[in-house]
Amino acid sequence: MTPPDKIEPLDLWYLEKFSENWGLSLRIKGGIHSAFSGLQRIDILETEEFGRLLLLDSAIMLTEKDEFTYHEMLVHVPLFTHPSPQRVLVIGGGDGGTLREVTRHPQVKEVTHVEIDEEVIRVSKEFFPQLSPGFYDPRVNLKVTDGIRFLKECSPKSYDIILVDSTDPKGPAEGLFTPQFYKDCHNALKEGGILTVQAGSPYFQQDLMARVHKAFRKLFPIARVYLSGVITYGGMWAFALGSKKYDPLQGPSRASKGLPLKYYTPHIHKGAFILPKYIEELLGL
Amino acid sequence: MTPPDKIEPLDLWYLEKFSENWGLSLRIKGGIHSAFSGLQRIDILETEEFGRLLLLDSAIMLTEKDEFTYHEMLVHVPLFTHPSPQRVLVIGGGDGGTLREVTRHPQVKEVTHVEIDEEVIRVSKEFFPQLSPGFYDPRVNLKVTDGIRFLKECSPKSYDIILVDSTDPKGPAEGLFTPQFYKDCHNALKEGGILTVQAGSPYFQQDLMARVHKAFRKLFPIARVYLSGVITYGGMWAFALGSKKYDPLQGPSRASKGLPLKYYTPHIHKGAFILPKYIEELLGL
Repeated sequence: MTPPDKIEPLDLWYLEKFSENWGLSLRIKGGIHSAFSGLQRIDILETEEFGRLLLLDSAIMLTEKDEFTYHEMLVHVPLFTHPSPQRVLVIGGGDGGTLREVTRHPQVKEVTHVEIDEEVIRVSKEFFPQLSPGFYDPRVNLKVTDGIRFLKECSPKSYDIILVDSTDPKGPAEGLFTPQFYKDCHNALKEGGILTVQAGSPYFQQDLMARVHKAFRKLFPIARVYLSGVITYGGMWAFALGSKKYDPLQGPSRASKGLPLKYYTPHIHKGAFILPKYIEELLGL
Repeated sequence: MTPPDKIEPLDLWYLEKFSENWGLSLRIKGGIHSAFSGLQRIDILETEEFGRLLLLDSAIMLTEKDEFTYHEMLVHVPLFTHPSPQRVLVIGGGDGGTLREVTRHPQVKEVTHVEIDEEVIRVSKEFFPQLSPGFYDPRVNLKVTDGIRFLKECSPKSYDIILVDSTDPKGPAEGLFTPQFYKDCHNALKEGGILTVQAGSPYFQQDLMARVHKAFRKLFPIARVYLSGVITYGGMWAFALGSKKYDPLQGPSRASKGLPLKYYTPHIHKGAFILPKYIEELLGL
């Protein structure tokens, strides 16, 4: 057989399974980085459609193309609900996207970033520089430790905002989805404090979403679920918000016009809480 | 080699490509029906996660599990916007889901159903009986013909509502996405009439969505785009609505409480029009 002049690249696909029976398929240009941090497996792939892709324990964390749809909505809904978000705690989010959005708020004076796996921060700085500006912001203090332990030992009424930007509830993040952890978050919040967590998929993690909301309703006078359209998470993602005083449905407390945002608007701030009937029913609303 | 006691079924996956570079993968139990109607290929598969799946020309039309998220939103947003939707024209929608939702409205006196491919109706009646009740409703008149020609020959000011439930703009449906077709629809609408069409994916058919909206803006004093979360269409789908008089943002004109709906609510009626900033920008809003 005569060898061809040029060897064509293989047609490689990554399949992200949302359950055993369905998932998202992404065409891959190639692998960029793979390692085991000691806590979890970290992979970075180059996709044809979505730019670079970060996987933790073989689950999609983000792609360059659509990460803003997740990070903007996790951060700006609570931060614009609170009239004066000065002290912010971020649990997880080692990729830096959440910190980047938090540090866009000039009202924020101090951000404590608790990440269990420093290696995620290192590879993100190297391979996702556009997510990294928050790491270099002087208001941000990094604590490489377990978020569960950090909250247990935290002084009461320390934070205006707590954001939990975790992986799925298995492996390192499992304890971040328990009523006890949410109770510790509640204790660590000031009087007008707000807790917001990623609460899974309203399409394929409905039990998880409902369970988180139920726990929030027991702790907070204002407990709500809102959605963002995140393409590479199956098209839609849920966030649970618990607030001691300020209701997000009252709308943003100040203008977002100066910020370079691509998803969040004052209309989406309220609109994201309007849920399809079957999701309302899953949440017992 | 000793043969096993039992032959395990193959691990079969169907990949719906949204572009050359990504798509949705569904595990398949097996094929139920495959045929070529003369106009298009029709396939019905049994999936593990979503029940039965209908493909036209190898593109997902619907699954049993999530078709309500598309059909309810295509139909009820315009029908609840109009205070008295008596005469309704449905173009396409041979599976019956749109007719099923239209005929839930007691105000509707007459539905003209124009479907180019009678074979889609036949297989849907046989394999998707839960979508079929509208076919047997005495208010529904079926015309097996080309929707483009039907609209061209239609008397002016004939309908309160026109719904275009088409496939992608290639093959039989190509002419259903042209400014001329929308103009013919506009002419066929009564003074308070409303045209609503499926306008593609805000994730992977952004040019199409923007093009349809642009055409609607030229024809109608009120032209808007709204979204529904349709899992098997990539998570989110767009609809374009053009209205001669009634603005959907004024809210529904009457209560939907009596109808057995799973997606549409009076809140979603307005909330579906609240778009992420990048989609607003794609539409020139």
